[in-house]
Amino acid sequence: MKKLDGMGEDELIARLVALVPTGEAVAGPGDDCAVVDDGGADLVLLKTDALVEGVHFLNEADPRQVGWKAVARVVSDFAAMGGFPERFLVTLALPGSTSVEWVEHFYRGMGTCFDRYGVVLVGGETCRVPEGSSAVISISATGRVERGSVVTRSGGNVGDAIWVTGKLGGSLKGKHLVFTPRLEEARWLVEYFKPTAMMDLSDGIARDLPRLAKASGCGFLIDRAAIPLSEGCDLRQALEDGEDFELLFTLPDSPELLVQWQHKFPELKLTKIGRLMEMGAGDRLSGGWDHFGLL
Amino acid sequence: MKKLDGMGEDELIARLVALVPTGEAVAGPGDDCAVVDDGGADLVLLKTDALVEGVHFLNEADPRQVGWKAVARVVSDFAAMGGFPERFLVTLALPGSTSVEWVEHFYRGMGTCFDRYGVVLVGGETCRVPEGSSAVISISATGRVERGSVVTRSGGNVGDAIWVTGKLGGSLKGKHLVFTPRLEEARWLVEYFKPTAMMDLSDGIARDLPRLAKASGCGFLIDRAAIPLSEGCDLRQALEDGEDFELLFTLPDSPELLVQWQHKFPELKLTKIGRLMEMGAGDRLSGGWDHFGLL
Repeated sequence: MKKLDGMGEDELIARLVALVPTGEAVAGPGDDCAVVDDGGADLVLLKTDALVEGVHFLNEADPRQVGWKAVARVVSDFAAMGGFPERFLVTLALPGSTSVEWVEHFYRGMGTCFDRYGVVLVGGETCRVPEGSSAVISISATGRVERGSVVTRSGGNVGDAIWVTGKLGGSLKGKHLVFTPRLEEARWLVEYFKPTAMMDLSDGIARDLPRLAKASGCGFLIDRAAIPLSEGCDLRQALEDGEDFELLFTLPDSPELLVQWQHKFPELKLTKIGRLMEMGAGDRLSGGWDHFGLL
Repeated sequence: MKKLDGMGEDELIARLVALVPTGEAVAGPGDDCAVVDDGGADLVLLKTDALVEGVHFLNEADPRQVGWKAVARVVSDFAAMGGFPERFLVTLALPGSTSVEWVEHFYRGMGTCFDRYGVVLVGGETCRVPEGSSAVISISATGRVERGSVVTRSGGNVGDAIWVTGKLGGSLKGKHLVFTPRLEEARWLVEYFKPTAMMDLSDGIARDLPRLAKASGCGFLIDRAAIPLSEGCDLRQALEDGEDFELLFTLPDSPELLVQWQHKFPELKLTKIGRLMEMGAGDRLSGGWDHFGLL
């Protein structure tokens, strides 16, 4: 009998969504958020995400940082669509031996991120997992994006330049707990330059760039020497570590972009790392993080 | 250091919500759904809920029934507010040794419930828990309720009759996996009789009725002989088993209600079990299900 181990996350999702009614979402499963048209002035964005103890954070991690991370990951997904989050729900599945202090610090960490991005918690659920089971934290959120601003993974065109914010790799040295979602940057991009495709880097560029290219019906060519490395990281780590939560986006070549970016965000690197090609042409990348796949 | 074990869920939630920004929700934490006013024609309802293997379902349970239950619990929460669900998100945190077949059957079970209630799945997340950890399933949903139809737990008044649908107790004999959320019934009630307070019975009437009464600033008196017992159940089981997912609601005495109910829903029992009293007067109930409390 086939097990989840050894099956890629993308393949699994494709098999599962065929089994349920999914309605007429504007962006399908596989994008950073679900996009729904309610007929209102804006489109509605919906997202669910989970953190597992021992996978996304260690037992000894600072619960305030875990709380920050749990919310910031989701904020990053809304940024990747060109939109913004508004309301959050949290589910904590915890062993009964968890200290109340841990949970309170976790909430304080979430609260810091809620305040930073002007969002609110509207509901939650706390339930018990058997002793010895990993804690699971599930965060869901709703938000919006203007109809003219929504960016999916599938709009990239052959010839578009591929850009990435920040520096990549080294997430496990602690960055994955304290990163800054690029919400302001993404909002600026959709207002002034309108990327053709965009996503946030959660599983490493080696896994995420092929996803974006495939969704856009393209191949890609990257300039390995241009990949911005985090301090102390080599190229492999930059490509495969995952949890960078930087923006990866495509755009027809624009001489203005870098100039205006550096003026607006002088402290955050923006790097052109390659371009989209005809499907089948260009590079192949493998590696990166897959929840169930064989790495 | 204080542990979650021994702390009541209600007390825990009250401590936690004080630590984060919660905005101006119409109904606060502790109600069946969060209610948000977006300025639209209807109010927005949001809900998150979780199932834990070994707590809410056993490893050997039929995954199709688990999928049904996961969705039906949430449908029941929307019914309890007088509203209806529209869009669902699902997070599965599973060991890698889980069979793909199990997950597919789980999705089919969800799909049956989605079809039954005319709702759709718009997003999901699948992640791995360490081997030996319990599976955790988290379901979130958005929905709506007309401004004139929303019912919370807090609107009950002294003298209101207390009603309950169906029969209570015996959930562990299998009912908890195959129950029918009372969505149609709740929608009929808010249209024709407008309950003053309503909730669904998830933790047993012994725990849930005191919650409704407290939220309404009332006490309560119940007629133990009137409690509708599931076949083979005694009063204690009916009061404490939990997971009945029947509607509990209050309403000024109305001779018309039972007559019209029996005409509209001839196969579903409706029983007056008592009335709301001045706070401090009447009965006390204890027992029922608490995720962390000492039972």
